[in-house]
Amino acid sequence: MSSHNHRRDLLVGVDVGGTKVAVLVVDSSLKALNRLVVPTVLTNPQATLAGIADAIEQAVGQAEAGLDRVAAVGVGVPGRVNTQTGLVRRAVNLGWDELPAGQLLSARLGVPCLLENDVTLAAAGAQHYMGGAASRNIAYVSVGTGIAAGLVLDGRIYRGAHGMAGEIGHMIIEPGGPFCRCGARGCLEAVAAGPAIARLGEEAANSSSHTLLRRYSPITAEIVYLAGKEGDPAALGVIYEVSAYLALALQQLIVAYDMGCIVIGGGVSRGGDIFLQPVLRELAHLREHSVLRDEMLQPDMIRLLPPDYDAGAWGAVLLGRGSLSDDLAGRKDGQKGEDSLKPAPIL
Amino acid sequence: MSSHNHRRDLLVGVDVGGTKVAVLVVDSSLKALNRLVVPTVLTNPQATLAGIADAIEQAVGQAEAGLDRVAAVGVGVPGRVNTQTGLVRRAVNLGWDELPAGQLLSARLGVPCLLENDVTLAAAGAQHYMGGAASRNIAYVSVGTGIAAGLVLDGRIYRGAHGMAGEIGHMIIEPGGPFCRCGARGCLEAVAAGPAIARLGEEAANSSSHTLLRRYSPITAEIVYLAGKEGDPAALGVIYEVSAYLALALQQLIVAYDMGCIVIGGGVSRGGDIFLQPVLRELAHLREHSVLRDEMLQPDMIRLLPPDYDAGAWGAVLLGRGSLSDDLAGRKDGQKGEDSLKPAPIL
Repeated sequence: MSSHNHRRDLLVGVDVGGTKVAVLVVDSSLKALNRLVVPTVLTNPQATLAGIADAIEQAVGQAEAGLDRVAAVGVGVPGRVNTQTGLVRRAVNLGWDELPAGQLLSARLGVPCLLENDVTLAAAGAQHYMGGAASRNIAYVSVGTGIAAGLVLDGRIYRGAHGMAGEIGHMIIEPGGPFCRCGARGCLEAVAAGPAIARLGEEAANSSSHTLLRRYSPITAEIVYLAGKEGDPAALGVIYEVSAYLALALQQLIVAYDMGCIVIGGGVSRGGDIFLQPVLRELAHLREHSVLRDEMLQPDMIRLLPPDYDAGAWGAVLLGRGSLSDDLAGRKDGQKGEDSLKPAPIL
Repeated sequence: MSSHNHRRDLLVGVDVGGTKVAVLVVDSSLKALNRLVVPTVLTNPQATLAGIADAIEQAVGQAEAGLDRVAAVGVGVPGRVNTQTGLVRRAVNLGWDELPAGQLLSARLGVPCLLENDVTLAAAGAQHYMGGAASRNIAYVSVGTGIAAGLVLDGRIYRGAHGMAGEIGHMIIEPGGPFCRCGARGCLEAVAAGPAIARLGEEAANSSSHTLLRRYSPITAEIVYLAGKEGDPAALGVIYEVSAYLALALQQLIVAYDMGCIVIGGGVSRGGDIFLQPVLRELAHLREHSVLRDEMLQPDMIRLLPPDYDAGAWGAVLLGRGSLSDDLAGRKDGQKGEDSLKPAPIL
């Protein structure tokens, strides 16, 4: 190891969530050396940042290396990120607003820290996982407490005109429908995200006397999917309703932007097949009578990520890849995806 | 002129439509030298191609030049185009399918002819017209017999995974709604394109005895908008219904892909203010209660192109721009848009 002391040949990817921080340490051939998951410290913004920095140090130490071996740290944050300055806005779950998190982390660690929105990085991570031509146009759709998408178009991260691309949770999918936390009515989130599924589950439990759902209080999205797996008709009714909305939103994305593939993640998607299959069935139904949609909306283009693949942390690793010296950043076949990532070092 | 004989310093842009062919001849500073519009010859595919080639020769001749001065011809075609080979598929309005139009035209004229989908080129032309940062993410939405969009994202033409991006006419906007010519139900086209407006106009005429619409048979979309301009309540009812669907589709585009601006063209949009204002009003209504949409959906981001600006032919001109020798292709300030266009010479 000592001969490598001054060679910055490692990359670190961090996925910062509202409950946990996942850290991935990889070598220059993208081989994972260590993965560490710690709870997110939420006392105050400074403490959250310190917790992230501590976790990075710990993860690198566990890989039997020091920070002087790290070429760059990529960090995915659930908020709006100025990728040039590392300034984070509206990271509601972290309590961050107008926080120069990139600069603060870089200064603390002495390593360039590149920040990006977490869902966007998960799209890059998903592209890395999928490989192949189809993933050059990929949407990573996170279905959890909210619904959001990260987009890689023509092999490049796509952020949109105001850095807000992918806010599909606020597509109006049911005009005049239930109120959304954004203030409007009928947004996709308001009819198909975790809290909406829980609400529909409660309603189904109240109106049906023979449902497993009545055994639980409060009813969560997870419980609805578990009951659905057991064949509970009330739960399945909720699942089918939600699936129809999700399928409608996915076909909007596909038909308008001709995506090569869509990868779904997020808490609600952990239901697995009982989550995915009804969505695929609805999409098959939408495809049925249209020559055009038949061509654009292939059945195998919608996938779940394996629950143990940390798309966000992988995307964060890739964000730092341009910081490796050229002789270390040799690219492998079948990893075209990374062409896409043009990190702008913050320091 | 004679000193320029062997200098290829002109560009030609052609917009091929189902009824007319528009040809634009410009010099290396993009100054228009001539514009020619001729009817499309529709006898057979060869005759259509010959008609296009004749129009190009004639337009260049009228600019007091010869084809030996032309560096490249860009051609927008209403169908699916393989931009590498110039092969055109499914240009239904021209009766072309699997036609190597790029090669045939290039051979006939002795000038590289670069082909692209017409709506896509109109997006590039619209970007050129608008200028500024917002137009780096622009959708050109054509509302006519059908509805389709051309997309420029991050300053580059975006074609999607299968070259089919922009088929927004087939977003399902009214599940279970009227049948679309694509075979499915409830597509945007089926509720908001010209034929749908005409159909709704007929229905309104049949169910209302005091409407100007009753004076016309058949009722067209144009007549509906003309009657709306006169304040006819039945026509306005149709216009408001259609505007709500268009606004809903536009907000899907904007919220999901964070567009900088949307430019609307096509036959139906020629209604002008009576077309645009109700759409803007519906969008304002959708924006009303949502902080997020308020930020992404700015009132001035939706525009009509001036009817005399030939977006398609301008986009076609820009497609050929890379073929100018470097000293001729000097770029002007405020025309960042053309960075986007990376033409692939066909010959």
